[in-house]
Amino acid sequence: MAKQIRYGMVGGDLHAFIGEVHRKAINFDTRAELVAGCFSNIPEYNVETAEAYCVNGSRVYDDYKEMAAKESAREDGIDFVSIATPNFLHYEVAKEFLSHGINVVCEKPLCFEIEQGEELVKLAKDKGLLFGITYTYTGYTMTKVMKEMIAEGKIGKIASVSAEYAQDWLINELSPVEGAQENLSVWRKDPKYSGISNCVGDIGTHIENYVHYVTGLKIKRLLATANTYGHALDLNSNIIVEYENGVNGAYWCSQIAMGHLNGLVVRVFGELGSLEWQQEHPDYLRFTPKGGAPQMLSRGDGYIKEKAGASSRIPVGHPEGLYIAFANIYRNFISALIDKKNGKDVSGADFPTVSDGLSGVKFIHAVIGSAKNNSSWMEL
Amino acid sequence: MAKQIRYGMVGGDLHAFIGEVHRKAINFDTRAELVAGCFSNIPEYNVETAEAYCVNGSRVYDDYKEMAAKESAREDGIDFVSIATPNFLHYEVAKEFLSHGINVVCEKPLCFEIEQGEELVKLAKDKGLLFGITYTYTGYTMTKVMKEMIAEGKIGKIASVSAEYAQDWLINELSPVEGAQENLSVWRKDPKYSGISNCVGDIGTHIENYVHYVTGLKIKRLLATANTYGHALDLNSNIIVEYENGVNGAYWCSQIAMGHLNGLVVRVFGELGSLEWQQEHPDYLRFTPKGGAPQMLSRGDGYIKEKAGASSRIPVGHPEGLYIAFANIYRNFISALIDKKNGKDVSGADFPTVSDGLSGVKFIHAVIGSAKNNSSWMEL
Amino acid sequence: MAKQIRYGMVGGDLHAFIGEVHRKAINFDTRAELVAGCFSNIPEYNVETAEAYCVNGSRVYDDYKEMAAKESAREDGIDFVSIATPNFLHYEVAKEFLSHGINVVCEKPLCFEIEQGEELVKLAKDKGLLFGITYTYTGYTMTKVMKEMIAEGKIGKIASVSAEYAQDWLINELSPVEGAQENLSVWRKDPKYSGISNCVGDIGTHIENYVHYVTGLKIKRLLATANTYGHALDLNSNIIVEYENGVNGAYWCSQIAMGHLNGLVVRVFGELGSLEWQQEHPDYLRFTPKGGAPQMLSRGDGYIKEKAGASSRIPVGHPEGLYIAFANIYRNFISALIDKKNGKDVSGADFPTVSDGLSGVKFIHAVIGSAKNNSSWMEL
Amino acid sequence: MAKQIRYGMVGGDLHAFIGEVHRKAINFDTRAELVAGCFSNIPEYNVETAEAYCVNGSRVYDDYKEMAAKESAREDGIDFVSIATPNFLHYEVAKEFLSHGINVVCEKPLCFEIEQGEELVKLAKDKGLLFGITYTYTGYTMTKVMKEMIAEGKIGKIASVSAEYAQDWLINELSPVEGAQENLSVWRKDPKYSGISNCVGDIGTHIENYVHYVTGLKIKRLLATANTYGHALDLNSNIIVEYENGVNGAYWCSQIAMGHLNGLVVRVFGELGSLEWQQEHPDYLRFTPKGGAPQMLSRGDGYIKEKAGASSRIPVGHPEGLYIAFANIYRNFISALIDKKNGKDVSGADFPTVSDGLSGVKFIHAVIGSAKNNSSWMEL
Repeated sequence: MAKQIRYGMVGGDLHAFIGEVHRKAINFDTRAELVAGCFSNIPEYNVETAEAYCVNGSRVYDDYKEMAAKESAREDGIDFVSIATPNFLHYEVAKEFLSHGINVVCEKPLCFEIEQGEELVKLAKDKGLLFGITYTYTGYTMTKVMKEMIAEGKIGKIASVSAEYAQDWLINELSPVEGAQENLSVWRKDPKYSGISNCVGDIGTHIENYVHYVTGLKIKRLLATANTYGHALDLNSNIIVEYENGVNGAYWCSQIAMGHLNGLVVRVFGELGSLEWQQEHPDYLRFTPKGGAPQMLSRGDGYIKEKAGASSRIPVGHPEGLYIAFANIYRNFISALIDKKNGKDVSGADFPTVSDGLSGVKFIHAVIGSAKNNSSWMEL
Repeated sequence: MAKQIRYGMVGGDLHAFIGEVHRKAINFDTRAELVAGCFSNIPEYNVETAEAYCVNGSRVYDDYKEMAAKESAREDGIDFVSIATPNFLHYEVAKEFLSHGINVVCEKPLCFEIEQGEELVKLAKDKGLLFGITYTYTGYTMTKVMKEMIAEGKIGKIASVSAEYAQDWLINELSPVEGAQENLSVWRKDPKYSGISNCVGDIGTHIENYVHYVTGLKIKRLLATANTYGHALDLNSNIIVEYENGVNGAYWCSQIAMGHLNGLVVRVFGELGSLEWQQEHPDYLRFTPKGGAPQMLSRGDGYIKEKAGASSRIPVGHPEGLYIAFANIYRNFISALIDKKNGKDVSGADFPTVSDGLSGVKFIHAVIGSAKNNSSWMEL
Repeated sequence: MAKQIRYGMVGGDLHAFIGEVHRKAINFDTRAELVAGCFSNIPEYNVETAEAYCVNGSRVYDDYKEMAAKESAREDGIDFVSIATPNFLHYEVAKEFLSHGINVVCEKPLCFEIEQGEELVKLAKDKGLLFGITYTYTGYTMTKVMKEMIAEGKIGKIASVSAEYAQDWLINELSPVEGAQENLSVWRKDPKYSGISNCVGDIGTHIENYVHYVTGLKIKRLLATANTYGHALDLNSNIIVEYENGVNGAYWCSQIAMGHLNGLVVRVFGELGSLEWQQEHPDYLRFTPKGGAPQMLSRGDGYIKEKAGASSRIPVGHPEGLYIAFANIYRNFISALIDKKNGKDVSGADFPTVSDGLSGVKFIHAVIGSAKNNSSWMEL
Repeated sequence: MAKQIRYGMVGGDLHAFIGEVHRKAINFDTRAELVAGCFSNIPEYNVETAEAYCVNGSRVYDDYKEMAAKESAREDGIDFVSIATPNFLHYEVAKEFLSHGINVVCEKPLCFEIEQGEELVKLAKDKGLLFGITYTYTGYTMTKVMKEMIAEGKIGKIASVSAEYAQDWLINELSPVEGAQENLSVWRKDPKYSGISNCVGDIGTHIENYVHYVTGLKIKRLLATANTYGHALDLNSNIIVEYENGVNGAYWCSQIAMGHLNGLVVRVFGELGSLEWQQEHPDYLRFTPKGGAPQMLSRGDGYIKEKAGASSRIPVGHPEGLYIAFANIYRNFISALIDKKNGKDVSGADFPTVSDGLSGVKFIHAVIGSAKNNSSWMEL
């Protein structure tokens, strides 16, 4: 019995971590089926991945351009493609599928250049296609609760934002060992593969997207430092932003902050209270109403249960984890796809879009631009 | 292309929380396929669930006995059945499938009576069948790390154990409101549906199983109080255990402990250090070596990475959550099934078995027996 | 200019940790002056301590009996004596001063034998003297807030109690090293110096006193295990109590629980909510109202500020620490002393009394008695 | 019997919180005696405070200038004066006592203008006097451990600093209520009383001092935003600093960050590990060595015990609190005073000095200057 939605994937073979996450996240809900793919430029990996997911051999492609062309020509062609290639291919693959009229979900970053991003935004709009970006952390239940509480005025008018994304997995880059493995450095040195930024591009953009998602605030301008510690690209960056309403926020991202694994922490302070969310403990949301004590909200508390709605899949107290965040993004994308097929309005769909992806690219350019220009303000 | 393993399910229609968890957990890995089911005694639910998972109508059964008979007769019959029915049916369903030579995975508790449990253990053994019990929390990566560290002697000889499982979802039972919804009470009052215990049976057994899993300690005797607060069955229980090696431990389980959601916390103290794990923050393990400061281990730290092995599916710092714990249990069960098919020894397989299920039933009877006998020691 | 209250001290020379704590705690408020002492049986220590506190040489005594006699005979004799001797001397010193009509503050434990405790209670009552016991933890601001919130019904009728006091400083006793320093063992082996219990007497009694102080619950009976690990006295004990109202609680105390420094943690669960206090983070109180999220109350929050009243000495957010807990006990004792001098009623004074000390002695005897009697229930 | 050191106090009557803290902190150790004072310009408060501390009436002054003159003329005059007046008087009072050859301890901020600070530094140097500033947080035991660990290279060369000081007590200033109490605003609006900054001056300087104390890093330049929310002075400020060695750090201070009481948090990241200290839980220090898991060090752990040395006054696990931090600063100041009297070198004395005070004033001016100059870099 066929499922409602058919999808294909470019990149993300079994040996690539993120491809599996995408497929399992889609599998969480039972409406979409993987039917085509160009998973790897290594033929054996390509076939192996297809077999693991029972993809018919006739729809396993060596070339993503061939895949876009053939799938768009089939009656039962894919409804959307999920792009899980290395970053430097995002732009061209997305453009190819959009051009063939196929909806897209793409890993972040959307692309490297602002002009590329603007082109993709325009293309999606002109073709009337859905284009989702997997900014994972917006999929967590408590992220959505945070967004709703702010929208409802629970913390009042926002007065200050403090956000950070700290990791330590590149600490070795601070004190390189003679003769040690250099793969990392290759990626870090060649803008062809990494664009103009390493740390800001990889994790700083999550801060930018997350804060925008939960608060609705838009950055007007920013200034920044970006530390390379002798390498070609940044490993640590401090950023001060000014939103369009004149409020300031401070962002910090780092891949050399020993003691932090995947520490996205966002705190929003308003005139009536504050909210804090930590990615490593995603089922909790610290809420302090003005005049009261800090409360540790979780998915199932009375008030929250309603807010969390369908995003929460299991009883409170049972950790949901990253897969469910991912699954929520895909579920909302697929729901919108079904609605669109049925002629419904999907303008209110709750998933990060190509426009969010473009904002991320602009953010990266502004941060690196400021850092290279004596930390002066850069307009966005 | 067919998957390696075919499975069926009894109970667990789409409207039942736990059935979905089982199916998604199995889906995490790509080796088993749902091909048969008797998901509900409500025909529409049964069909609806089958359709959601593309189960062929000819293998959707109204009666689990028919399912056991027909599936065992097919060449392409199911390799195992997953039992997600209400607790009072576990025994008879498991017995039926075992009798027909089909491997079983069953939700806990295994059954209500010790004799039933012993019968199932014997049946599985005589038939040479695998029988897994989904004691979920043993599937977490850091649980396995804890087990390995104890086995390796990292905390030395065990001197004391402190474990608790605190929830608050039944706090209303302490002050029942006139005319309020009484469904809960029905379940709580009729031993036909709940056996002799509510709280100890539902969550106390997780403590018993978890401590045994990570330490290897076997309970020799125990004494207990069990509080019913005017209801037929227990809602809160304090237990002191004595293991076969003479060491004592204290267990506490409660469903009326306001402020605790799903608080399984296990602390093991040895002569060389201690380990503590909390279910609500499952990616961390607090380790204090003698003479040192407490350390917060997580899945990816050097030493741990190796220990965690295949149990850890995503990079450290990204929360894994309950589904992966579940998936790990099923993965190990399915691996053992494949090994068994290939004639390999599966005696070292890492999943909770029917014997663990029987230990749980004995534990429940000892606790309730002691509580009813002036908290005197009960041998296990 | 003379202060309102004059006090003396027995024991607690400069080389003894606890003597200094007592003196500094008294010094926190400016109403009492140290004017006499018998600080040590080592003459140089005695004199040295006297000089450090400007105690006039004529009131430095070699013998506490002489001190009691002479001070009671002086017009300007001490108003109270603070007893900071080793535990085995508490009884005789307290008795001596009471007999001479001098008010007493004594370190816990009050004494070793129940009969001794009863004698001291009677003596204080007959003489109309104040007798305080420094159960330190009742002096913390948030402890008093906890007590008041429970008294006000914020958590409703109590349904369960969970309390522990875990330390690790005696972990070496689990694996004694040949030829190592044996001082500890001497103290632990001779009941003359330590009474019948080590761990329960030293820290278990703090649990007993704390729970009683905040809840008002009285223990009707208890059962226990007590682990000696080959030594003469206990190092770890699990206790189940039944209060006079039929509710159960579980206590655990340990000096071999690696990873715990001075971990007194008390949780009280009621039908309308729960409260949790941790000694290592004493400025906070976790309160979960039924139907709400856990809140982290601290000393200065609106509602709490009023409750905390005079106990809180510095603005919230600035840690108060152990000295202030101690100072609060002495302040209340000294206020009562002044009130008594002025003929006021002091029956509502808020400090632990000789009766609380006696309860502690009874508790110790019940725990050790139960442990030696196959963990059977012992009435208190 | 006279104590070794005599001191006087200007400001800090019994009704002023901080005066009491100073006196109790000095009292913690038994070497200094309060013998003179000009505690308040309200005569009754002045006398009342003197009496509470048994200060002889002849040394209670209505005028601090008279006090400086008369005390400096006495044979038994004060060895040092402690200044606890409102901030705007610090400069003139300190100058007066220095001019009369009396050593000084002064609350922070040292003064309002850089020139004033430079004058005080020069005066103290020329006169050969000790001048301490009570930057409280440097007195905590774990702060000193952090300083020593960094000095010993435990985290290697510093690569990044993240520090914040968040409070919420002025959140009402974000949404002023018509007709509400306006005292605060008076202080905030008149630079005569508050200088050029509110938040940065009050708490931002603690960050500056603390980071310098533990790391030894000196700020070369900084840029900042400072938010006034319609008031005359700042309530929230984001700062990016560049130290002389080229490393960057980010500081944030706020008095409107709901949910934070007195949240000074300092994190230092090096090439070999990181250290984090939180003022609200001052007895702990989070240390993550490269390649290892985070450890929660506390005052008494083997390695630490030695480092903490005399700063730690009570056994680990017993919270020390703010008073001991204060007492440690005074103790080191008084020890230096005694050493100086005895002709010893005191250049290595461990307490914040007038030079640190001057650095704070320069920091305030740079932050406010940058904020008013489009957040451009300001050299220090």
